[in-house]
Amino acid sequence: MVEKVADRSSVGVGLIGFGTIGTGVAKVLRQNADVIEQRLGFPLRLVRIADLDLETDRRVDLTDIRFDADSAGLIADPEVDIVIELIGGYDVAKRMILDSIDAGKHVVTANKALLALHGREIFASAAKAGVDVAFEAAVGGGIPILRSLREGLAANHIESVLGILNGTTNYVLTEMERTGEAFEVVLKRAQDLGYAEADPSFDVDGIDAAHKLALLAAMAFGAELTHEQIPTEGIRALTPVDFELAAEFGYRIKLLGIAKCHRDVAGNERIEVRVHPTMVPAGSMLAGVDAAMNAVEVIGDAVGPTLYYGAGAGELPTASAVVADLMEIAREIRRGGSGPVAPLSYMPDHLVPKPLFPMSELRGRAYLRFTAVDRPGVLSHITGALGEQGIGIESVVQKGSGTAGDSVPVILLTHPTSESALQAALESVDRLDDVTAPTVMVRIEEEL
Amino acid sequence: MVEKVADRSSVGVGLIGFGTIGTGVAKVLRQNADVIEQRLGFPLRLVRIADLDLETDRRVDLTDIRFDADSAGLIADPEVDIVIELIGGYDVAKRMILDSIDAGKHVVTANKALLALHGREIFASAAKAGVDVAFEAAVGGGIPILRSLREGLAANHIESVLGILNGTTNYVLTEMERTGEAFEVVLKRAQDLGYAEADPSFDVDGIDAAHKLALLAAMAFGAELTHEQIPTEGIRALTPVDFELAAEFGYRIKLLGIAKCHRDVAGNERIEVRVHPTMVPAGSMLAGVDAAMNAVEVIGDAVGPTLYYGAGAGELPTASAVVADLMEIAREIRRGGSGPVAPLSYMPDHLVPKPLFPMSELRGRAYLRFTAVDRPGVLSHITGALGEQGIGIESVVQKGSGTAGDSVPVILLTHPTSESALQAALESVDRLDDVTAPTVMVRIEEEL
Repeated sequence: MVEKVADRSSVGVGLIGFGTIGTGVAKVLRQNADVIEQRLGFPLRLVRIADLDLETDRRVDLTDIRFDADSAGLIADPEVDIVIELIGGYDVAKRMILDSIDAGKHVVTANKALLALHGREIFASAAKAGVDVAFEAAVGGGIPILRSLREGLAANHIESVLGILNGTTNYVLTEMERTGEAFEVVLKRAQDLGYAEADPSFDVDGIDAAHKLALLAAMAFGAELTHEQIPTEGIRALTPVDFELAAEFGYRIKLLGIAKCHRDVAGNERIEVRVHPTMVPAGSMLAGVDAAMNAVEVIGDAVGPTLYYGAGAGELPTASAVVADLMEIAREIRRGGSGPVAPLSYMPDHLVPKPLFPMSELRGRAYLRFTAVDRPGVLSHITGALGEQGIGIESVVQKGSGTAGDSVPVILLTHPTSESALQAALESVDRLDDVTAPTVMVRIEEEL
Repeated sequence: MVEKVADRSSVGVGLIGFGTIGTGVAKVLRQNADVIEQRLGFPLRLVRIADLDLETDRRVDLTDIRFDADSAGLIADPEVDIVIELIGGYDVAKRMILDSIDAGKHVVTANKALLALHGREIFASAAKAGVDVAFEAAVGGGIPILRSLREGLAANHIESVLGILNGTTNYVLTEMERTGEAFEVVLKRAQDLGYAEADPSFDVDGIDAAHKLALLAAMAFGAELTHEQIPTEGIRALTPVDFELAAEFGYRIKLLGIAKCHRDVAGNERIEVRVHPTMVPAGSMLAGVDAAMNAVEVIGDAVGPTLYYGAGAGELPTASAVVADLMEIAREIRRGGSGPVAPLSYMPDHLVPKPLFPMSELRGRAYLRFTAVDRPGVLSHITGALGEQGIGIESVVQKGSGTAGDSVPVILLTHPTSESALQAALESVDRLDDVTAPTVMVRIEEEL
C-alpha cells in the first residue's frame, strides 16, 4: 500500500461517523486545506464518509466526497490510507478499528472509552501491522496534551498529571457557583443547551474523566491500568452551600482527575489515581478554568509544573486534534512508514501494571458537610466522632435553620489527616441519630 | 553516517557550552537515562562536552564523557551524531552550527537570538544536508510551545499568538506589584538572585521577547520577519503607581509579545507584531502567571483559545526541552533519516515576508500616566489635547502632592481609540509647559 500511496499527490482519508466531530473534521479539511498543504507540502484529501444517517444536512461541502453507509467498503477502499473512527462506543468501533488495521490502514480515533478498555489489544495489532493509531482528540479535545506528554516532556520522570478533564461537569460546576442554583437545575439547562447528554451519568459521575485519566497515567508513568481501577466520585452530591463555603475558605470546586507517581528511594513506584470533586486554591491556574474549558497540569522532575488549557470538547476544537493526527500520519505515509513514537509514550515492554497507591494512604485537608437535626449537642457528637479518629478541626460553620428540629448543614474544614481516619469518622457520624443524610466530603488539593 | 549509527546500540550526543543549561542537559541525560531509554527503546549517550572553562565544578557525574575545550574535535567526532549548541551569541555559535551541519550532524540549540537573525540560512543549510535543527528550548523554556504550534495545532489558521515570553521581566513586574518598590530596586534584587543579567537591557527592554515573538510569528503565520521589524517597548518607565492604578481598574501589568494575523475577505494577510507592557484583565489566565513563569496563548480558527504555561528559563526546565529535541532526532537517526516536519511549521516556499499591520492602525483602550505640575488648569490642558484628537476619557485619577507646584501623576483611562490619535495627543501633551516628564502609556488588551 505504501508504495502506491507515494505515487499519489495526496493522502486519502476515510471518515466513519458523520456526527458532530465528524462534521467538524470535514469542515476543517475543507476550510483549512490551504494551510494544511502549506505545512505538509501536499494535500490531505477526504475521499469518503460512512454513516447510517444519510439525511441530516451537515452544512458541509461534500463535492468529490463519496458519502454512503458502507463502512466496510470505506475500509477496503484503496484510495483510503487513513481511517477516522468517530462513531464512539465499544463493539462496533473496535471491530472497525481492527478491520482497518488488518487492511493496512492507519487509524485516528477520539474514542477514549474504547482505548481505556481495549487500548492494549488495538496498539499491539497496529504495531504488528506497521500502522499508526493516533488519538490526540481522546483527551482534552483540541489541547495538544497527549503530544506534549509523549514528546515535549519525554525527558522527564513525570511526577503528576492532574486536571479538569470533562467540560460538561466543569460547565455545571461553574454555573452552580455563579448562579447559586441546584445541581438538577443547572444540569437541565446544560442538557437544553446541548452541553450535557440526555443520560448525563457518563460525565457527571466522573466516568469520562476516569477514562481519560487512565490514558494520561499510562503515558505519564508507563502504568497499564483501566478506568475501573480508578476510585471515582462524581458531582451529584454538591449543593450551592458548598460553593459558597469554598469561596469563603479561599477555594473553588472542580472535578479533577489526579494521577501521581510515588517513587521510593529504591525506585519502586506506586501510582495514585483518583477522580473526585476537589477544592483548588482560588488563585491557582486551575481555578481560573471556567465553563466547558479543560486544563491539565503536568509536573516533571526537570521541567517543573506546566499547564495546558483549551476547549475540551466541541465540533471544531476536537476536529483540530483529529486533523493534526491525520497530518502527522500523512507525513509518515509519504516517507513510506509509520510513526516512530510509541503511542502510549513508553515502549510496549515498559508499559506494565504497577502497584496502586491505596486511597486509604492519602493525606490532606478535607471539607466536610454534615446534614444534622438542628438541636443542642449535635455539633459535639460530630466533633467527638472526628476526635476519636484523631482528626483536627480548622474551622466550623453551622448554618441555623431558625426552626429547631429541622435538618441543617454543619460544615467543617479539617487539618491534614489520613483518608482512612476520615472514612472511619464519616462512617460513625453517618450512623448518628441526629445525622439525616450522608456526609459530603470534598478533598482539598493545596499545591496547585 | 546514518548506516554506521544504525549499527550502534545508542545515539551519541556532543555538548558545546557547559554553562547553566548545558549542566542541566548533562544532569537530565544522566539522572533520567532510565525513562529516556524506556520511551525511545535505546539509550542516548553524552559522548563529549566542549567548553573553554574546564575548572568550574558543575556537580555532574562525567564518567565516560570526554570533556575538553576542543569544539572542532567534538563536531568532527564520529561518535557524535547530534551537536547541542549552548554557547549563545551570534558569530561563534553560528559557525559551530554550520560546521556541524556540514559535518552531517544534527543540531539542537536554544539560541533564539541567532535563529531570529540567521534562521533562514541555518535551516536552508540543514535541509540541504538532510539533517535536523531543533530548538524547542528557544521559546518558553521547558514549555513544549513550539511543538504544539507546529504539530498539535497544525490544522488551524492561527489567529493570534501572544504571551509572557521573558521570565526576568515577569519576575520584576510581579515583585514591583507585590512590594510597591521601584523598578531599580527590584531589578537590583533580581540581579543579586541571578534572575537578571548584569546588563539587563536584553530582557527589560523587550529584545529577548521580540526574538522569541519573531520565531512564534514565523511558525504561526508563515511570516518571515526579524525582531528588528517588531515595535518593542520595555518596562523601565513603569512605577509603583501604575501597578496600584492597574489593580484599581481591574488589570495586571505584564510584558506581552503579541502577534496577530489580520486576514481580509480576499485572503490577504497583514501581520501585527509588538512587544510592550500591557494591562491584562485581572481574571484572565495570563494575569495568573507570576514570578519567572511564562505562558503563551494561541488562538486557532478551529481549536479556539489555548494556553501553555511553565518555567520559561532555568537549568532543568530548559534542559527538559533540549533533551526532548535530542530524543526526537535520535528516533529519526535510528530510522536512517531526518525529521519530516518543517522546522518553522511551514514548507520553506510558504515562509515568506508578509505585509505588517502598522502600529498606527491599532485600536484599543489605553492607560496614560502624565507627569504634570500640580496647579490649576493642568488637567484641562491635558484633556483638551486628548479631545482635539477625538480621544474619549473613561476615568481620571489625579494624585495630589499636597504642595502646589510639585510634579504629580495624572492618570487617565481612555475609551477605545486609535494608536495614531494617541501618539498625536501624547506628542502635544508632552510639549505643554506644565508637563514635566514624558507620558507613560500602557496599552490594554481586553480579550484574554
